[in-house]
Amino acid sequence: MTAFGNGGNEAPLALTMGEPAGVGAELTLKSWMARAELARPFVAIDSRDRLAAEASRQEWSVPIEAVAHPAEAEQVFARALPVIDTALAQPSVPGELDPQNAGAAIRSIETAVELVRDGTACGVVTNPIHKHNLYDAGFRHPGHTEFLAELAGTGVEPVMMLACEGLRTVPITTHVSLRDALDNLTTDLIVSQGQITAGALRTDFGIDVPRIAVAGLNPHAGEDGAMGDEEDRLIRPAVERLRALGIVASGPYPPDTLFSAALRTGYDAAICMYHDQALIPIKTLDFTGGVNVTLGLPFVRTSPDHGTALDIAGRGIADETSMLQALRMAASIASRRAQA
Amino acid sequence: MTAFGNGGNEAPLALTMGEPAGVGAELTLKSWMARAELARPFVAIDSRDRLAAEASRQEWSVPIEAVAHPAEAEQVFARALPVIDTALAQPSVPGELDPQNAGAAIRSIETAVELVRDGTACGVVTNPIHKHNLYDAGFRHPGHTEFLAELAGTGVEPVMMLACEGLRTVPITTHVSLRDALDNLTTDLIVSQGQITAGALRTDFGIDVPRIAVAGLNPHAGEDGAMGDEEDRLIRPAVERLRALGIVASGPYPPDTLFSAALRTGYDAAICMYHDQALIPIKTLDFTGGVNVTLGLPFVRTSPDHGTALDIAGRGIADETSMLQALRMAASIASRRAQA
Repeated sequence: MTAFGNGGNEAPLALTMGEPAGVGAELTLKSWMARAELARPFVAIDSRDRLAAEASRQEWSVPIEAVAHPAEAEQVFARALPVIDTALAQPSVPGELDPQNAGAAIRSIETAVELVRDGTACGVVTNPIHKHNLYDAGFRHPGHTEFLAELAGTGVEPVMMLACEGLRTVPITTHVSLRDALDNLTTDLIVSQGQITAGALRTDFGIDVPRIAVAGLNPHAGEDGAMGDEEDRLIRPAVERLRALGIVASGPYPPDTLFSAALRTGYDAAICMYHDQALIPIKTLDFTGGVNVTLGLPFVRTSPDHGTALDIAGRGIADETSMLQALRMAASIASRRAQA
Repeated sequence: MTAFGNGGNEAPLALTMGEPAGVGAELTLKSWMARAELARPFVAIDSRDRLAAEASRQEWSVPIEAVAHPAEAEQVFARALPVIDTALAQPSVPGELDPQNAGAAIRSIETAVELVRDGTACGVVTNPIHKHNLYDAGFRHPGHTEFLAELAGTGVEPVMMLACEGLRTVPITTHVSLRDALDNLTTDLIVSQGQITAGALRTDFGIDVPRIAVAGLNPHAGEDGAMGDEEDRLIRPAVERLRALGIVASGPYPPDTLFSAALRTGYDAAICMYHDQALIPIKTLDFTGGVNVTLGLPFVRTSPDHGTALDIAGRGIADETSMLQALRMAASIASRRAQA
């Protein structure tokens, strides 16, 4: 695994461009306007022209200042939005995908990873990308997170965690069909993701003895095999292996009650058997404030838990709550790692 | 379909015994003690001895009065808990299943259905049963609801609805493994359950033009076929057929965001593709107050959305919120049907 610095206590966060036609420019501008609520500055890895055009469209008074190096960002941040300029091939039009601009979106991510690699940024926060637009331009990674993992180096197993106030969930599989999720479920996968999650709860969230709850797959966690055998065949052995590794793990629990107010105080993260088992409780509880944290990378990475919102891009109505939470959580994790 | 009366505006609800060793006795006693919060009396179809023993164990002052006919219940209800005595084969011990008492649990359900059939009760509210204990005694129905459907007559397709404050969900399949739920999903099933749901929202919930939201099955509702094809192959055609039937139906929607505060005001019920997709949002939002309503039966039937809770039976600590909500909802539906 490539060595990465943690950026020290003064380095800013690197905030990527995301899909040029999406709500990313708006979220970046709104986050800068809300800078009094942020513990740490960020530098946008973005097109200066795109940000200026969006500020002008919304009539927001946001001075934008190009910087050559993240170290300048701290001084600039109080008076202007610092940007490491990443030029687009074409002026972006809100809501209109343009494969010619996919290269800039990709370059923004690569630059952010270079900055955390050389320690001049303390973490990466990503605006949402539009995978199909990148695919049309030749992008060959299954998704944003897998691309970041490849940039991070070999031997990296990224783990997706969703976090909102009072609940953290980790889906064992992510962007595959539900049928494939069933086929891909293995004891090894539950164990490795459980281990990475427990480690991250210690180092990144400051929880000395993390408690891991493992969800079942079937209704009522199979009810002793009456409705599915994955609990006995795959999940229970994983819980036992995690416990043998010294991790406070328990389960499998009936999935429907695991996220209730009464039960969710009993664990620090729930390991979930498929995407929506993890996402439904988070978005049902807190549609606007959930954060996506990538565990298992050698650098800090968070993102809002929503997409590019092409349908409302350019209208100034995107909700920045999740992005602000993503910036705060990345800052908090970076500070913990710097102190470690 | 057998004809059933609606019991008129004065008939009480029939509350079954449930599993004799579970929390049912406690919930029935607590519900009577909270009778000031109920719009309509109920008559317990239960063992008088069991209820008296539970009241004595908890030191609750609940007079219990045997009645021969539900019509007596209204007068009795203000001063005592009216009971149509249904004797147990053995004294029940909280938490200890006894197959010898399964017959009484079954008889209680049969009696309740007879009372709604002859119009002397206006609806059935069921305490939770323990299927395995009934199976050991020879019970041959997949579950409580299927037994009620069989008692109701031929041609009945029961549909399970979960309801809490601000959200109603309907799982297309219920107590089968997730893999079987995928295999059992058909366009016909979505259409028939969508129709029954829309009809019940009109007649039982007083919603003139019900709005039905249909969930997708896969992450992001398949994202245009990139993660599963059930949305295009099975779900979208069902939505189109429902619309052709004059029902305000839409979808398939990404399952993770469908139950968020922003979206759940936009529909009156969500049709869900499997058990936990429907149950997770309900129990995450409202662990104690959710109600299970069986649609598609010729009589009113509700139940709390929890189990027998054998582990806490006899301790007086079971939460009666869901049972009280089940009693209130049954009363409300019965009144609507009586006015129709």
